[in-house]
Amino acid sequence: MDAMTTTEAGATAAPSEPALEPVTHGYHKQKDEHLKRLRRIEGQIRGLQRMVDEDVYCIDILTQVSASTKALQSFALQLLEEHLRHCVADAAVKGGEEIDAKVDEATKAIARLLRT
Amino acid sequence: MDAMTTTEAGATAAPSEPALEPVTHGYHKQKDEHLKRLRRIEGQIRGLQRMVDEDVYCIDILTQVSASTKALQSFALQLLEEHLRHCVADAAVKGGEEIDAKVDEATKAIARLLRT
Amino acid sequence: MDAMTTTEAGATAAPSEPALEPVTHGYHKQKDEHLKRLRRIEGQIRGLQRMVDEDVYCIDILTQVSASTKALQSFALQLLEEHLRHCVADAAVKGGEEIDAKVDEATKAIARLLRT
Amino acid sequence: MDAMTTTEAGATAAPSEPALEPVTHGYHKQKDEHLKRLRRIEGQIRGLQRMVDEDVYCIDILTQVSASTKALQSFALQLLEEHLRHCVADAAVKGGEEIDAKVDEATKAIARLLRT
Repeated sequence: MDAMTTTEAGATAAPSEPALEPVTHGYHKQKDEHLKRLRRIEGQIRGLQRMVDEDVYCIDILTQVSASTKALQSFALQLLEEHLRHCVADAAVKGGEEIDAKVDEATKAIARLLRT
Repeated sequence: MDAMTTTEAGATAAPSEPALEPVTHGYHKQKDEHLKRLRRIEGQIRGLQRMVDEDVYCIDILTQVSASTKALQSFALQLLEEHLRHCVADAAVKGGEEIDAKVDEATKAIARLLRT
Repeated sequence: MDAMTTTEAGATAAPSEPALEPVTHGYHKQKDEHLKRLRRIEGQIRGLQRMVDEDVYCIDILTQVSASTKALQSFALQLLEEHLRHCVADAAVKGGEEIDAKVDEATKAIARLLRT
Repeated sequence: MDAMTTTEAGATAAPSEPALEPVTHGYHKQKDEHLKRLRRIEGQIRGLQRMVDEDVYCIDILTQVSASTKALQSFALQLLEEHLRHCVADAAVKGGEEIDAKVDEATKAIARLLRT
């Protein structure tokens, strides 16, 4: 995954950079909140495994799936808002062609969220 | 949970059966496949936590959120199909008012999936 | 469109059948209600055209798009409920392989609704 | 944020414009394309009415509902992209508090699209 490659970059970049703003991507400050949300979703998915394991009634499992999906969408919206506020707005201020690329990229991400 | 009460119902309804399958709810046979799917989704959610922790680019995180949401919807559809094939079809065969209740319940579950 | 080809089929099939219940498909009795709903959605789409034509603010147009999409989904759920109650339940009562085909078909239709 | 520093770029650009485009809202130039799309969707909704009227099989109607919903979502995405490219980007360039309001507004519109 792409994500994995950034691991090393982030790990080595953090100490070497002059501590201005090492890695931002918009969602930096909300990191703790995001991790808390994701741990809660992980708990919901483990709850689903327990439900299947204990032969809980299908409809009750489906209700829990809907709740987990909603929590994931909520997390995505939060991330998207921060992305628009920081990355997209920054590109607009910088001017040039980057704003087009950023808007195109954001729209495609929204399309993927809508189509799931 | 409500689900637990249905267990007894199933157990007492089954006397003609050789008591081999005490609780079915349709998805019984696919249990292993369901658990495997859910464990994979749990892995995806943990992957999301790693991505946030390592300040991966927002759009890449959103792509992973879309994949997890799609996997959850896929699991829901599988469950729903088994529910229709077993619980709803059984209610139809039994006749009486139960089919109306089952269809109503299934439709509401589908509405919840659509609205998330 | 597929729909159009079915028109002729429906038109020619009707007289040949023993006029007991010429065409049912579950949603027969709710036909007037369905047509009313659809005419309201058609009005919403024409409203969208007016909004675009009068350069209404994008966000207000998007709000109206969401309302129309919700109305379409609501119509789909109503139709689906009737389909489950009649066609799927009938297939279950008849027994045989038809129930599998019907459940498979219904699940695919639900998947299409979820993926839009 | 960073956006504030480049505010001047926007400030100098603003007075130079000869006020030729009274109402833009981003989607101005694509107006004809939008109207064409919407008329096509209107045709699909009228097709649905014909299908219901002619007692077409429920599943075929549901397929057409999915197609219409997808067309509406597609229109919304197009509108949203133009909104981000123009209104949101403009607010970012202007600086001040407007960008927060615009991003908040856009995120809520996306949430409404996701929840339908």
